[in-house]
Amino acid sequence: MLEELKERVLKANLLLPELGLVKFTWGNVSEIDREKGIIAIKPSGVDYENLTAEDIVLVDTDGNIVEGKLRPSSDTPTHIELYKAFSDIGGVVHTHSEWAVSWAQSRRGIPCYGTTHADCFYGEIPCTRELTDEEIESAYEMNTGLVIAETFRKKNIDPLAVPGVLCVNHGPFSWGMNGHEAVHNAAVLETVAEMATKTELLNPSVKPVKQTILDKHYFRKHGKNAYYGQN
Amino acid sequence: MLEELKERVLKANLLLPELGLVKFTWGNVSEIDREKGIIAIKPSGVDYENLTAEDIVLVDTDGNIVEGKLRPSSDTPTHIELYKAFSDIGGVVHTHSEWAVSWAQSRRGIPCYGTTHADCFYGEIPCTRELTDEEIESAYEMNTGLVIAETFRKKNIDPLAVPGVLCVNHGPFSWGMNGHEAVHNAAVLETVAEMATKTELLNPSVKPVKQTILDKHYFRKHGKNAYYGQN
Amino acid sequence: MLEELKERVLKANLLLPELGLVKFTWGNVSEIDREKGIIAIKPSGVDYENLTAEDIVLVDTDGNIVEGKLRPSSDTPTHIELYKAFSDIGGVVHTHSEWAVSWAQSRRGIPCYGTTHADCFYGEIPCTRELTDEEIESAYEMNTGLVIAETFRKKNIDPLAVPGVLCVNHGPFSWGMNGHEAVHNAAVLETVAEMATKTELLNPSVKPVKQTILDKHYFRKHGKNAYYGQN
Amino acid sequence: MLEELKERVLKANLLLPELGLVKFTWGNVSEIDREKGIIAIKPSGVDYENLTAEDIVLVDTDGNIVEGKLRPSSDTPTHIELYKAFSDIGGVVHTHSEWAVSWAQSRRGIPCYGTTHADCFYGEIPCTRELTDEEIESAYEMNTGLVIAETFRKKNIDPLAVPGVLCVNHGPFSWGMNGHEAVHNAAVLETVAEMATKTELLNPSVKPVKQTILDKHYFRKHGKNAYYGQN
Repeated sequence: MLEELKERVLKANLLLPELGLVKFTWGNVSEIDREKGIIAIKPSGVDYENLTAEDIVLVDTDGNIVEGKLRPSSDTPTHIELYKAFSDIGGVVHTHSEWAVSWAQSRRGIPCYGTTHADCFYGEIPCTRELTDEEIESAYEMNTGLVIAETFRKKNIDPLAVPGVLCVNHGPFSWGMNGHEAVHNAAVLETVAEMATKTELLNPSVKPVKQTILDKHYFRKHGKNAYYGQN
Repeated sequence: MLEELKERVLKANLLLPELGLVKFTWGNVSEIDREKGIIAIKPSGVDYENLTAEDIVLVDTDGNIVEGKLRPSSDTPTHIELYKAFSDIGGVVHTHSEWAVSWAQSRRGIPCYGTTHADCFYGEIPCTRELTDEEIESAYEMNTGLVIAETFRKKNIDPLAVPGVLCVNHGPFSWGMNGHEAVHNAAVLETVAEMATKTELLNPSVKPVKQTILDKHYFRKHGKNAYYGQN
Repeated sequence: MLEELKERVLKANLLLPELGLVKFTWGNVSEIDREKGIIAIKPSGVDYENLTAEDIVLVDTDGNIVEGKLRPSSDTPTHIELYKAFSDIGGVVHTHSEWAVSWAQSRRGIPCYGTTHADCFYGEIPCTRELTDEEIESAYEMNTGLVIAETFRKKNIDPLAVPGVLCVNHGPFSWGMNGHEAVHNAAVLETVAEMATKTELLNPSVKPVKQTILDKHYFRKHGKNAYYGQN
Repeated sequence: MLEELKERVLKANLLLPELGLVKFTWGNVSEIDREKGIIAIKPSGVDYENLTAEDIVLVDTDGNIVEGKLRPSSDTPTHIELYKAFSDIGGVVHTHSEWAVSWAQSRRGIPCYGTTHADCFYGEIPCTRELTDEEIESAYEMNTGLVIAETFRKKNIDPLAVPGVLCVNHGPFSWGMNGHEAVHNAAVLETVAEMATKTELLNPSVKPVKQTILDKHYFRKHGKNAYYGQN
């Protein structure tokens, strides 16, 4: 069942090593079929080079396996919470890409220092709070998703306008309308993480861009007045 | 019409990913036919891997499409202003290459710290001033070009001797006699941006090279007494 | 004799350049047959591109050549001491990978700043003390192994839980159940060395992760309650 | 004439882009036939991808072209002075490799922070003094060579034990018994430049290795008591 979904999720997963966003098995992409309430996700700990559409696991929104011989990604409960909290997204990605992880480990959100960032993320990419010991010791992966949702709620950030986050001490999650777009956003997040690091090295007292630049670039590419691209 | 021009512009655009200067669709090259007053430029938001000479858009110097089914790069008005202000250039490039963007985001010009820089850029590669809110909110891309021209005029820099600039918070533009040379200059700009960053890490109080070194290296490669290469 | 062992050691050695962990001849992998007391190791100074299973040298645990026409790696005595001190390991790797060497040269262990590290190394990756002049001048390579063992003993670190070390001023050694796993750990060590460097650049006062995160991530992948992967 | 020499010099030149040491035409390798007093060198400004043995230029030790249709590298007078000053060397290389240039631009020699450095360079890789305006304005390339020789003479460094230098504000020159070895040394120089930069980022007060480590590693690979490799 859902062969097309599994095929799309396979392709989106294979993009991760192609774009240099994962080493070994350190990443996973999922996509949801909202109507059927079914999520297709990478199996846990399987190498990308051997991955086939057959291996993609289907789970329901309670995490029960609906189809597949392999165990789903250990991060599946995080994906599920993101689909629950952010009702308009269709795909989720997790990676350990180097620059984004470095920001997560430094416990800082990535300020918007330029238009590469503003073209894709409408403002700072936030970093979550630390999980409590209780949150870590029971249902860690679910709580990771809940804390991401809490971050966006408390900071009043629209998850469609800022389609990514840094989980403190851990690494980035990103999302989009589907798995492919989520991977694209993961790649942009990694690049702006790199650029922001180098920007701070060159000017330790640098400030984020002003609101008019953020508005100009974000809305040049998004929303009803967008004029970038061919659509 | 102008098939050769379109073919050259295609090739110059394809050099960008080949030289590692762009990801996704983050860059564009144009070339002008001065006699006909026609500019050939990459279409907006089209992937490099699928780009053909057919896709290259021809516009006049008011930005009207003369030939092509696709919308031209959203940066077209910037290219046009550069062709108007710098009457001897034949090609223009814009990229989001990582090191150059980091300098642009740090709001600093790149000092000439060595001969790799001096061989191609006769002095500091300037960074523009911030655009005003009015300049951003109306005709942003045209104003970006006007502010680049203003930068060279006010600092009294010859755009042929310093064939590149950093647009603050945004990224580099470079130019040359044609699209190919403009891309070459974009690659040199990226490399000197990288070297200058590392130089400052190693010696925070480093000073630019002295004038005699700048003269020696720049004029070894440029002008009537040049003796580098085979011409 | 031991053709399979030699074949495995060849493959593990060839992984080093494939994973970007060595340049030229700067690395070596060995594996031990505990029953026979025989170690298979790369020959000294031979290029990876020309390496064959025939070239792999067999030595006993006193370092005597048992089979092979070539001289074994000059680091062989270090490998031998590690096999003697850490009785449960089956493979050892040495490289000069850039980030790990930089930490070794800075004379610092790598703190555990995040989950990429905790997934593989249960705490700080230690840096050895300097060897004394006597230790350097006689039996240098053997003493290198003895000082690694001393480091783990004095700091009371379990070498199976922290399967790698930085030899001060020199570079990393890592190990595992076999050569392949040892190389995997060398690659993770290099990546966490990179991430930890960038983390400190972004936040000079950053602290290691708390114990609950270290426990959660390490034991999610290791030990009887592991739930990552397919086993 | 000297077809073998030209073939060897071609191959050594082609190693430069293969090892990632040059972009565009920013590098050159030469080799000398000491008996005949003839130097074979890359032509000036010719792309590596089109380079053939036919293009290699033969010059005598006064810089006169002996054979070849192309102009020799503009750095030829520097190569000649190095062959004159360092009578035991057979090959010379110049590159603009990024990390080495960054040290040259920072006007600092590279301290010996570890064994990767000590295995190839017996101590600090020196940085030359600035050339005077007179030295720059007349016979610049010859004076570059003379100042390198002066650096080794004044600091009492054996050019065979430290087979490389940083020309201040410019970049590295290295040498060896032949062109191939000179290129190898250029690659090691670039790697130790990278490692030394990162070492200082991690520990700004780091000190060079002690003499016993320098002796141990250098003489493990060089001289009559060497025991690394198969010879």
